[in-house]
Amino acid sequence: MRFDILAPAGFATDPAAVSRAVARLSGLGHSVRVDPTAVSRWQRFSAADDARLAAIERVASDPDADIALMLRGGYGFTRIVDRIDFEAIRRTRKRWLGHSDFTAFQLAALARAGMVTFAGPMASYDFGAEQPSVFTFENCFGVLANREWSVECPLDGPPKLECSGVLWGGNLTMVSHLVGTPFLPDISGGILFLEDVAEHPYRIERMLYQLLHAGVLTRSRAVLLGAFTEYQLNANDGGYDLVSAIAQIRAHVTVPVFTGLPFGHVREKLTLPVGGRCTLESRDGVASLRFFDYAA
Amino acid sequence: MRFDILAPAGFATDPAAVSRAVARLSGLGHSVRVDPTAVSRWQRFSAADDARLAAIERVASDPDADIALMLRGGYGFTRIVDRIDFEAIRRTRKRWLGHSDFTAFQLAALARAGMVTFAGPMASYDFGAEQPSVFTFENCFGVLANREWSVECPLDGPPKLECSGVLWGGNLTMVSHLVGTPFLPDISGGILFLEDVAEHPYRIERMLYQLLHAGVLTRSRAVLLGAFTEYQLNANDGGYDLVSAIAQIRAHVTVPVFTGLPFGHVREKLTLPVGGRCTLESRDGVASLRFFDYAA
Repeated sequence: MRFDILAPAGFATDPAAVSRAVARLSGLGHSVRVDPTAVSRWQRFSAADDARLAAIERVASDPDADIALMLRGGYGFTRIVDRIDFEAIRRTRKRWLGHSDFTAFQLAALARAGMVTFAGPMASYDFGAEQPSVFTFENCFGVLANREWSVECPLDGPPKLECSGVLWGGNLTMVSHLVGTPFLPDISGGILFLEDVAEHPYRIERMLYQLLHAGVLTRSRAVLLGAFTEYQLNANDGGYDLVSAIAQIRAHVTVPVFTGLPFGHVREKLTLPVGGRCTLESRDGVASLRFFDYAA
Repeated sequence: MRFDILAPAGFATDPAAVSRAVARLSGLGHSVRVDPTAVSRWQRFSAADDARLAAIERVASDPDADIALMLRGGYGFTRIVDRIDFEAIRRTRKRWLGHSDFTAFQLAALARAGMVTFAGPMASYDFGAEQPSVFTFENCFGVLANREWSVECPLDGPPKLECSGVLWGGNLTMVSHLVGTPFLPDISGGILFLEDVAEHPYRIERMLYQLLHAGVLTRSRAVLLGAFTEYQLNANDGGYDLVSAIAQIRAHVTVPVFTGLPFGHVREKLTLPVGGRCTLESRDGVASLRFFDYAA
């Protein structure tokens, strides 16, 4: 496959990781093009808004590209999401892969054009890691190289559940800040996955309440919580923690809430087809997830 | 006037400030009742959800109370906002005063019951300050003791503007997390004020984009930005800062955006009647604000 690495949000904070990602993908027999945004910088971004938008169009219109691979997240899609022609991008049939800030692109693509994208590894932290994760690679290439993909993983939640629906979600902060905008897809009966980084549990709880009060949780068949990492508790929390936050939400929703999904700002992550379909079969703490209907 | 001090969110992190607030309000000739929540603690909250909800009902039904004064913010209203009977509270004709997390109460009260509340000082940081602000006190008692109140202050924005509309807003994070829920009032032609604390400028910008994409900014006659304080810039910002964030938003909206409103997590703050009416006359950096139609 041919990968185009682009940086549509933050600049390359670790340039060596770009080289490592290129070497690793090449070593696996793929070809790689590094977009100019993956090596440029403007303020906290890879480039100004127009230039980042142009990078997205460049990759979309590259006849050789199969996979549009995000370099990293940061902050950036919010500034340009209203200027992206998702219908035109969908027609080019590339597969777009990344997570974190990229959630805004993914959910807007689904909302505006019914376009499937892939929540999964990025060039900098994953493909360019000094010690890449076999789990992450296997699941990523498994999903991308096949028309359906199954994975079994421990998930903590209701003892027995079977459901299926559209798989969607991403970074909780990004999802939360899309509520009320035209860039949040209106999914009923979906399976919603969420993760976040550097958000205190009370902030995670507050965002989950927003999704609850906005009807997003209630309309879901299941909620799969991934990794919530890199936050700091303090003395004023008085024992309140992430477990408290999740217990609070579970006590106020009827939708099954699972924890432990291997996804987020962590080394071992699944690749999740956003806008594809998913079947979840959970029994006694072990879940089988089958992803399908995600091929272009 | 009789003040009831309650802590419907975070616990009293500075108990001495409660005593100072009581002494100061008493010294000004007011009477004060300290609700049990202003001295209790449970986790990071003053009390469990049911007990905080009971405190709100206790104050609302206290026949002697004129002003329901929040002790402080923190996090808490999000957990109970859907259980508050705002119509019943409105009928008791108390005036509710505070800011920060209290924004959720204020906007829900306006959305659910058309109830006016007051964004202004709280017991802990303001009335209980070691060196209280004359500006804050004058404006607070000026608003509360009169049926209308005018104030002149420097505001940076368009050179000349006159407009009037419903005054509303509060803490930007709270406003942002109410978008899409039944607790955000649907105000057209209003004057929206916003402040925040400990939020990086890119996060402030992202929240303002949410309000833009959700139509909230576009439906406003003017946006008044107060204080945005206690955030940390870092080397990866590369010169991006609060000024950049505000310039970005100004370049993407047609609504007049002013900065410099004396409001937020700062010592000198106005008292703003949320749901009342406001006339703004701005000329060459000086604005006259007149608040009216806020008396019960």
